[in-house]
Amino acid sequence: MTTMQDQRTLSPELLHNIDAYWRAANYLSVGQIYLYDNPLLKRPLELADIKHMLLGHWGTTPGQNFVYAHLNRIIKKFDLDMIYVSGPGHGGPSVVANTYLEGTYSEIYPEISQDEAGLRKLFIQFSFPGGIPSHASPECPGSIHEGGELGYSLSHSFGAVFDNPELIVACVVGDGEAETGPLATAWHSNKFLNPASDGAVLPILHLNGYKIANPTVLARIEHEELDQLLRGYGWTPHFVEGDDPELMHEAMATTLDTVIEQIKRIQHNARENGDLTRPRWPMIVLKSPKGWTGPKVVDGVQIEGTFHAHQVPLSDPATHPEHLQQLEDWLRSYRPEELFDDSGRLKTELAELAPQGDRRMGANPHANGGKLLQDLKLPDFRDYAVHVPQPGVQGIGDTHELGRFIRDVVEMNSDEQNFRVFGPDETASNGLEAVFNVTDRQWDARTVANDESLAPAGRVMEMLSEHQCEGWLEGYLLTGRHGLFNCYEAFIHIVDSMFNQHAKWLKVTSGLPWRHKIASLNYLLASHVWRQDHNGFTHQDPGFIDHVVNKKASVVRVYLPPDANCLLSVTDHCLRSRHYVNVVIAGKHPAPQWLTMEAAEKHCAEGIGVWDWASNDDGGEPDVVMACCGDVPTLETLAAVSIMREHLPELKIRVVNVVDLMKLQPQTEHPHGLSDDAFDALFTQDKPVIFAFHAYPWLIHRLTYRRTNHDNFHVRGYKEEGTITTPFDMTVLNDLDRFHLVMDTIDRLPQTGEPEATLKRQLADKLIVHRQYICKHGRDMPEIREWKWSH
Amino acid sequence: MTTMQDQRTLSPELLHNIDAYWRAANYLSVGQIYLYDNPLLKRPLELADIKHMLLGHWGTTPGQNFVYAHLNRIIKKFDLDMIYVSGPGHGGPSVVANTYLEGTYSEIYPEISQDEAGLRKLFIQFSFPGGIPSHASPECPGSIHEGGELGYSLSHSFGAVFDNPELIVACVVGDGEAETGPLATAWHSNKFLNPASDGAVLPILHLNGYKIANPTVLARIEHEELDQLLRGYGWTPHFVEGDDPELMHEAMATTLDTVIEQIKRIQHNARENGDLTRPRWPMIVLKSPKGWTGPKVVDGVQIEGTFHAHQVPLSDPATHPEHLQQLEDWLRSYRPEELFDDSGRLKTELAELAPQGDRRMGANPHANGGKLLQDLKLPDFRDYAVHVPQPGVQGIGDTHELGRFIRDVVEMNSDEQNFRVFGPDETASNGLEAVFNVTDRQWDARTVANDESLAPAGRVMEMLSEHQCEGWLEGYLLTGRHGLFNCYEAFIHIVDSMFNQHAKWLKVTSGLPWRHKIASLNYLLASHVWRQDHNGFTHQDPGFIDHVVNKKASVVRVYLPPDANCLLSVTDHCLRSRHYVNVVIAGKHPAPQWLTMEAAEKHCAEGIGVWDWASNDDGGEPDVVMACCGDVPTLETLAAVSIMREHLPELKIRVVNVVDLMKLQPQTEHPHGLSDDAFDALFTQDKPVIFAFHAYPWLIHRLTYRRTNHDNFHVRGYKEEGTITTPFDMTVLNDLDRFHLVMDTIDRLPQTGEPEATLKRQLADKLIVHRQYICKHGRDMPEIREWKWSH
Ligand SMILES: Cc1ncc(C[n+]2csc(CCOP(=O)(O)OP(=O)(O)O)c2C)c(N)n1
Ligand SMILES: Cc1ncc(C[n+]2csc(CCOP(=O)(O)OP(=O)(O)O)c2C)c(N)n1
Ligand SMILES: [Mg+2]
Ligand SMILES: [Mg+2]
Repeated sequence: MTTMQDQRTLSPELLHNIDAYWRAANYLSVGQIYLYDNPLLKRPLELADIKHMLLGHWGTTPGQNFVYAHLNRIIKKFDLDMIYVSGPGHGGPSVVANTYLEGTYSEIYPEISQDEAGLRKLFIQFSFPGGIPSHASPECPGSIHEGGELGYSLSHSFGAVFDNPELIVACVVGDGEAETGPLATAWHSNKFLNPASDGAVLPILHLNGYKIANPTVLARIEHEELDQLLRGYGWTPHFVEGDDPELMHEAMATTLDTVIEQIKRIQHNARENGDLTRPRWPMIVLKSPKGWTGPKVVDGVQIEGTFHAHQVPLSDPATHPEHLQQLEDWLRSYRPEELFDDSGRLKTELAELAPQGDRRMGANPHANGGKLLQDLKLPDFRDYAVHVPQPGVQGIGDTHELGRFIRDVVEMNSDEQNFRVFGPDETASNGLEAVFNVTDRQWDARTVANDESLAPAGRVMEMLSEHQCEGWLEGYLLTGRHGLFNCYEAFIHIVDSMFNQHAKWLKVTSGLPWRHKIASLNYLLASHVWRQDHNGFTHQDPGFIDHVVNKKASVVRVYLPPDANCLLSVTDHCLRSRHYVNVVIAGKHPAPQWLTMEAAEKHCAEGIGVWDWASNDDGGEPDVVMACCGDVPTLETLAAVSIMREHLPELKIRVVNVVDLMKLQPQTEHPHGLSDDAFDALFTQDKPVIFAFHAYPWLIHRLTYRRTNHDNFHVRGYKEEGTITTPFDMTVLNDLDRFHLVMDTIDRLPQTGEPEATLKRQLADKLIVHRQYICKHGRDMPEIREWKWSH
Repeated sequence: MTTMQDQRTLSPELLHNIDAYWRAANYLSVGQIYLYDNPLLKRPLELADIKHMLLGHWGTTPGQNFVYAHLNRIIKKFDLDMIYVSGPGHGGPSVVANTYLEGTYSEIYPEISQDEAGLRKLFIQFSFPGGIPSHASPECPGSIHEGGELGYSLSHSFGAVFDNPELIVACVVGDGEAETGPLATAWHSNKFLNPASDGAVLPILHLNGYKIANPTVLARIEHEELDQLLRGYGWTPHFVEGDDPELMHEAMATTLDTVIEQIKRIQHNARENGDLTRPRWPMIVLKSPKGWTGPKVVDGVQIEGTFHAHQVPLSDPATHPEHLQQLEDWLRSYRPEELFDDSGRLKTELAELAPQGDRRMGANPHANGGKLLQDLKLPDFRDYAVHVPQPGVQGIGDTHELGRFIRDVVEMNSDEQNFRVFGPDETASNGLEAVFNVTDRQWDARTVANDESLAPAGRVMEMLSEHQCEGWLEGYLLTGRHGLFNCYEAFIHIVDSMFNQHAKWLKVTSGLPWRHKIASLNYLLASHVWRQDHNGFTHQDPGFIDHVVNKKASVVRVYLPPDANCLLSVTDHCLRSRHYVNVVIAGKHPAPQWLTMEAAEKHCAEGIGVWDWASNDDGGEPDVVMACCGDVPTLETLAAVSIMREHLPELKIRVVNVVDLMKLQPQTEHPHGLSDDAFDALFTQDKPVIFAFHAYPWLIHRLTYRRTNHDNFHVRGYKEEGTITTPFDMTVLNDLDRFHLVMDTIDRLPQTGEPEATLKRQLADKLIVHRQYICKHGRDMPEIREWKWSH
């Protein structure tokens, strides 16, 4: 615990002013929660001055206001480049109040002016129809972290400081938030930070003791245990504890001076002395009462310093006249008349406490990352083309080809240091091993002999936490950089809810003209459902894209390139795009290649198209459309087509391949959607469509149910059948294999005769032989393993 | 670090035998990964003896075999009731080998006999078509935790020991697994364990240093830091470190004796002396090489003790003859001839090391929880009926009514102690506050004055971690108990992937006759998308049910009760059900009540039905069907109906309400699905259907696209529009409000005249007035707030 020293950090005057600044922020916070009118309390408070619906979270707010006021001081003192992340973002009133006090709010929203009229609007708009949400939402300048869903503040903060050596992110972590899994592992991010080339995160654990209705774990373990825990996580904690504002201001100021000096020393040591041993970075534990300075007791119940302070302490002045008086007393306890002049403007001596211009945390360009965004330099993806003299040549595994492209993206942007690859220990396993020819995994913990591709600085971030990968990448993108997240397809569901929040952020920010667009969040899902040879059923789930397409069409894109050249073209496109979430699904196992680079580029630009070379309808009306989407379904479809072309040569088959899944949606639903005419031209108005799909089959129905020919769509995909078995057997278990596809087609032809019946019988037999063979030999039949397209 | 002592724990003979037992398990593990034949190496190994596809994870296996052998010893010594959880469940060969050695495997699978023929099958079946998966999968006796998706071992273990005072779960935590968020916070579970009435978890951190392709964080921090971290988490770590088997056996045995004695002492102190101060439970850190005893170097690359040992160290004997020799040397290094007799049976002196009967970890009934499952005692839910003299009376909030029922479920089963409520700090906020009249939150950390409903023992488990709530509950259910998880609807996505794994577990176990069925996993999603008055856009996501319905229809159920009586009936049903995941979505805000208990019971039993009292088609053919699913959509639909009945009295309207979402699916797709005839009888074959839905609208299309009248379905639901605004405005933003519903209906009527046109104009105006009103007053118009059903 930091105690008072002889040498005071704050002069009495400065202490008084910082306290006044804090009171101003508290006053504005309470005003936002309650006031409809009478913003400066120029007259006694009346019921009509109070909003009808009282919404907001008071409990966390005064502590965050306290932190913000003190950060302002050290920013000025050390001329820091600092942004603020509010873990418990439900303390929205705090960040709004503070960006208003420092002036950034009114610069962006001139109608919220720095006078009485502006104050009134500031108060009304909060949690009010037509106004702003109650969290540190995108509308609030300086925010890169809304904090609605708790748990990601530290990961975001680390993402922000990677490759930003001058930046410090002050990250307030809620003690409740600290109980979440993602936050609990995020403390370990310090093992992945390079003190020379990255910036610093200053975590401030806000130990206000409570969450919604419970105490917090970290507040109810012994002081010594908490100290051990944080040291065990690799930090050096500094405790600031108490509830007497005067003592607390001095303690906080002194501690902040100390930790900033420590950060500077660590950075100097790394940068000037080349000492990259992992530092024990400083952090702060701020132990102060929840709802500090708010009502102590309401209706006989203790509020300040308990969980009852979490939301709105005086919740019903309309029916409790005494609450109205308590509210007025509370507001007046901040002595607004000492803080604002008659016009409602913050007094000059207080306004001067805030930093200037871009040093203000609400104006720092890192928190509006698109402002700083530079285009990624990209090599010509065509240079990585796989040679495809004829369709069906065997490839080495599509993601392995992509790896060479990504490797060169890393290299071309090595001066800018603005591109990173993230993954939970699977970058090599997912086929991107080529990147390790030019860079390493960034790793600041101990290394030993035999370690491979580990270094203090590197472009690849690998920790066995999908949450961390996602959070780091989001923070990196939000501050204006580029990246790629590679992950097993099944386990990307671990970050479903993080994706949700990011997609919501993109949707809202795209409606805010002052927010500049950022680079897209790119997922590469290799190791997909169909090839879990090592892992089986637990690793089989292609449903992330179902989840993704629930979000606004304007921000989501889904690609399933059928081969390596398409994967290259698609990835190039994704890395150039802005403000989307792009999901790319690709295989890592050796697989046939279909298109030359020229054809692939055209195919990907169109997103969907007929493969003439595989079709035999000669541009006329086919008898059946064989559609496919995804690498394995494409292979099985083409194998099915080749069986039919051999055995049923009269049948006119059209092969349609889908790369860009959103092409299937109506134009009215998604910007990529095909017009109905174009859709009908591909899929006909009335012919059977046998659709082999990578993921759950009903997603195709969901996307196409309004299309003319939908009733004739027959979709095969993953239907939750699987275990460890051979690659081909996985398709058999889910009726997606070539034999089933042929039988399905025959079943849907208007007229069939003897050849069709015979073929069906033969194929049914084949499936039995297949089963017997794999159970005996443990691998697929030679005719499957060695099958080649030959038309 | 534990060092050698004068007094040895193991006699030379016992040490020798335990080592032999370990070698036997290692031998069987390598055999499973590689051998197709020649299981006892009675002749030199040939290529034909090796499987074609070599799949599996060697690295983790020897360490887990080591642990298992030593646990056997202490189970016998102390007569322990113990089960084993394998965090890195990809060490499947280990749990299979050990349950085989102890005899449980052959009892369940007699064809895998304890002789040479059985051994051969044991080896072939592993990771082989028609065989078993490579993880600690449901097929393996003794497993309650597959470990495919890493991170949940500790939460599952704690769930298993709640209310099982005699049980100890030995939980091996992978050092890679420990990097995941869920695992990182799960260490704190010790603050929620009551030493008197719960059992104990013995975590064994398997510090083998590596994950797939990287070292682990915990292996590369300083010893002192790791010690601090674990102590900070509240544990007392005991380190067992080394690679010399002889020293390690003695160290492990001594340490296990110590920790079991500590556990017994803690429990005695709590149970006999009534001392419930939170104990610092012991745990073990086992630091041993990854791939211990396996090949040291292959092709010049160090394998043992590096990440290269993770999967199959000698991966291609077919093309590398020297690998074949190395494999044979490796297998023979375990000296199988000393371990198995000529018939292939484990030698008697070794077999005797395993516990007997149900004490064997593979046979312990807790790991086949359905065996122990007792029906929950349930009060008659009808006794909690809300009085509904006429449709539309205002309720207090549906979940608040349910709270009284749940309270009594808690009380009625207080002797059995087999029901718990789990939630991330929201049980009161979600409306279940009544349970705190009869029980508390279980909390073993410090308490202070002003704390509410916290006690060392209690039926409610609240930690701010959806992962922990889910993991604890799963562990609790898997060991044969009952429970309920209450959560904000949006944030249940946090456990999407955990739900996946549990649903997969249920699917697989329902196909294993020896696995008894367990109680269903019940989600109560209160605080749903339509009522995020405090929280706004980040808290709005009704997509969990989209995710859920991707899993096998045989294990998932989704209910959206429109009022409190329906909620009671549905919950009663869910609490009686077995082996499902039930999702129940309900509101907590005051809302109109529609059905008497009698009507509700009937309606819920049917799952879907016409509300005659709201319809005016008099059982004949309607002009339009107004369908609704969910509490808010039901309210808006009825309000729309009442507008139409007033303004368009000629229009024949049928109101259909859906409680059981799966009724909409075809019978062929879901056991609850309506037949086509029944569906057509409700929704007609050709009339417009205006469907107001709680969640994303396309889910309804996905479920109904094969139905006759699907083309006439017009669905409104949440379309990702929202912020903080009034409750009614939320429906307006998403076109789900009464006015839009009426306008939608008019647009779809075959013929409309002047009255319809006038009404549409009036309603369009209303929407403008609404907007103006809420932006001025901050709450809904009186006619909305005070609207009542009156037909
Ligand atoms: C993942 C998640 N689960 C649950 C909630 C609901 N919730 C909102 S605030 C809160 C308590 C937060 O406590 P803490 O982090 O200590 O913040 P503070 O005390 O500063 O308000 C909870 C549980 C949430 N926002 N996110
Ligand atoms: C959540 C999750 N992410 C990624 C993986 C892929 N994976 C499988 S094993 C493994 C490494 C496990 O390391 P550790 O827990 O240390 O186990 P061990 O060393 O005992 O094999 C990884 C990352 C997974 N199974 N689960
Ligand atoms: Mg708190
Ligand atoms: Mg490991």
